[in-house]
Amino acid sequence: MTERLAALSGWMKDNGVDVTFVTSPDNVFYLSGFLSDPHERLLAVAVFQDAEPFMICPAMDKENAKNAGWNLEIIGYSDTDDSMELAYNGIKKRVSSIKKTAIEKEQLNVERYEKMAGLFGGTEFVSAEEKLRLMRMVKTEEELQKLRKACELADFAIQTGVNEIQEGKTELEVLAAIEYELKKKGVTEMSFSTMVLTGKNAAAPHGTPGLTKIKKGDLVLFDLGVVMDGYCSDITRTVAYGEINKQQEEIYNTVLKAQLKALDTARAGVACLEVDLAARHVIEEAGYGDYFPHRLGHGLGVSVHEYPSLTSTNPLLMEKGMVFTAEPGIYVPGVAGVRIEDDVVITEDGIEILTKFPKELVFVS
Amino acid sequence: MTERLAALSGWMKDNGVDVTFVTSPDNVFYLSGFLSDPHERLLAVAVFQDAEPFMICPAMDKENAKNAGWNLEIIGYSDTDDSMELAYNGIKKRVSSIKKTAIEKEQLNVERYEKMAGLFGGTEFVSAEEKLRLMRMVKTEEELQKLRKACELADFAIQTGVNEIQEGKTELEVLAAIEYELKKKGVTEMSFSTMVLTGKNAAAPHGTPGLTKIKKGDLVLFDLGVVMDGYCSDITRTVAYGEINKQQEEIYNTVLKAQLKALDTARAGVACLEVDLAARHVIEEAGYGDYFPHRLGHGLGVSVHEYPSLTSTNPLLMEKGMVFTAEPGIYVPGVAGVRIEDDVVITEDGIEILTKFPKELVFVS
Repeated sequence: MTERLAALSGWMKDNGVDVTFVTSPDNVFYLSGFLSDPHERLLAVAVFQDAEPFMICPAMDKENAKNAGWNLEIIGYSDTDDSMELAYNGIKKRVSSIKKTAIEKEQLNVERYEKMAGLFGGTEFVSAEEKLRLMRMVKTEEELQKLRKACELADFAIQTGVNEIQEGKTELEVLAAIEYELKKKGVTEMSFSTMVLTGKNAAAPHGTPGLTKIKKGDLVLFDLGVVMDGYCSDITRTVAYGEINKQQEEIYNTVLKAQLKALDTARAGVACLEVDLAARHVIEEAGYGDYFPHRLGHGLGVSVHEYPSLTSTNPLLMEKGMVFTAEPGIYVPGVAGVRIEDDVVITEDGIEILTKFPKELVFVS
Repeated sequence: MTERLAALSGWMKDNGVDVTFVTSPDNVFYLSGFLSDPHERLLAVAVFQDAEPFMICPAMDKENAKNAGWNLEIIGYSDTDDSMELAYNGIKKRVSSIKKTAIEKEQLNVERYEKMAGLFGGTEFVSAEEKLRLMRMVKTEEELQKLRKACELADFAIQTGVNEIQEGKTELEVLAAIEYELKKKGVTEMSFSTMVLTGKNAAAPHGTPGLTKIKKGDLVLFDLGVVMDGYCSDITRTVAYGEINKQQEEIYNTVLKAQLKALDTARAGVACLEVDLAARHVIEEAGYGDYFPHRLGHGLGVSVHEYPSLTSTNPLLMEKGMVFTAEPGIYVPGVAGVRIEDDVVITEDGIEILTKFPKELVFVS
């Protein structure tokens, strides 16, 4: 953790920030190792240019925060304490003036902000979000280990779902079976709401699983992810149930070709936009350009959507340790919806693909 | 919906508020009938003293909002539009000056707030949250219908869980089976993370289900809720697996007596604190006062925690249409954790209990 805190302090020195007050559970976890959702209660890490950081959390969580590896000061508070005032006292002990305060403007609510503004006097508020996003974008080997575990469970989940496919079963039944088997393995959290979509539902890029029954001749799309030790996986596979028609198969193979092309392009030093466009061109050339309405992918780690963003316009260069999804899709209403998604890490000399479920078209009979 | 919008306009007249800009998905749903989580995108309802309200949402959601029953103006926007500026234009068309703006200060983030402050000029921001909480506290018959359905499914979930209890099964396995059966019935969302806790885990008021195995002589605690048509249920039952000891049984019967006493006290015109204290005194008299560390209950509806709050100090008088939980508990580390929770509505002449699973101690063999 110390390296991350030091990196943030360095940024603060460069930008004249006196205190960074981090309140989003994801960034608190990233900086402290302590993963907790305090709901409306205050959980924060305060970082300074030179003084030692501290954490503030509900008194009952202090022990957990220590056990998670935070060995600097922890200010605990009870429900009758004024937590923001205690935090302010901790800050004032460390710095004499608070001219510039960095917060997470997309996360902090107005109530807490007004309270801070009142306590801190005439401080200027800037955002720490971009800096933290850039820090989190490049993963350490320890983080990669956790992502590998999360991806292994995602592969297992896809296999479970494929095994469950059967005439007349509903999307929700298959989804339920997947999550049942994951829970038996000790998984307590998914990265996002699991999607099992079939037939025309799969032809919408963001459908909702329901009571639609699977039938022969359908494509079945699975999009899911598992949270393991605080890190998220995200995988999509589309399989055929029984025989599918020529156009469905053509769409599948176009998506697969596009996805492989993207993986083939991704490496350190290549711009994100190049990777998106590599896949996009394959789909455009096949005549389906209008049916691929989203970006190629997104970074993932502590959050399921983080940096880098793989759009057709992002000039950011890929570097070793970046982890992202590559997930082209084609959705033709009434015909087919296909998406294939892997989680990928940029390595020294290429990529490592973390999700390993086969991508050749699987026919379930 | 119109009545709710009119009530909000009335409050605005009384308080000189020119525009109320509602951005939390729960309150947007309450005012418009449209239930949607737009994530980082803007979804809002703007309400005025006299002018007609409007909604702003992503263009792709317009149709859904209409179908949900919103028949006033909808401003749709694409990802390349500046949504807050479009919202501001919609407001300026309706009111000439914006001296006072009501927002949800606990929900709105600083980034959007600063954007609003910039666009709106020198407006004063006040909070609309308390008013909306008070409005939502009293339910209509239509809302009660939805809550009854959600509670029926909660009863079913408890029965499913009880049926699953077996030597050596883990908490997560039983939990998985409950959610599996609910999904088969079309349930897509739980009110909160389902809890199945056994043995010493149940003796913590907020434990986390894990790989602990159920064994004879344990108490097993279920706490769960189902979201149906946007409304949340919340039920807790504790059952015995095999024979339990005298103290465990005494604790169970004390909690049950306390819960029945609370239900016996609750009716229109009685203060919330009286209902909490009715249960609390039973537990104190039995010598377990120190082991009941939380309030008796909370309101529920669109959110699983809303007004009224049943604490030992809330003087608010109960009135017809209020819906809340009554959930006393006793948690003695190493001995037992028992909580019994029903969802209750205040009626003309008493109460209606929405959750119906039996409360006499169930022995699973």
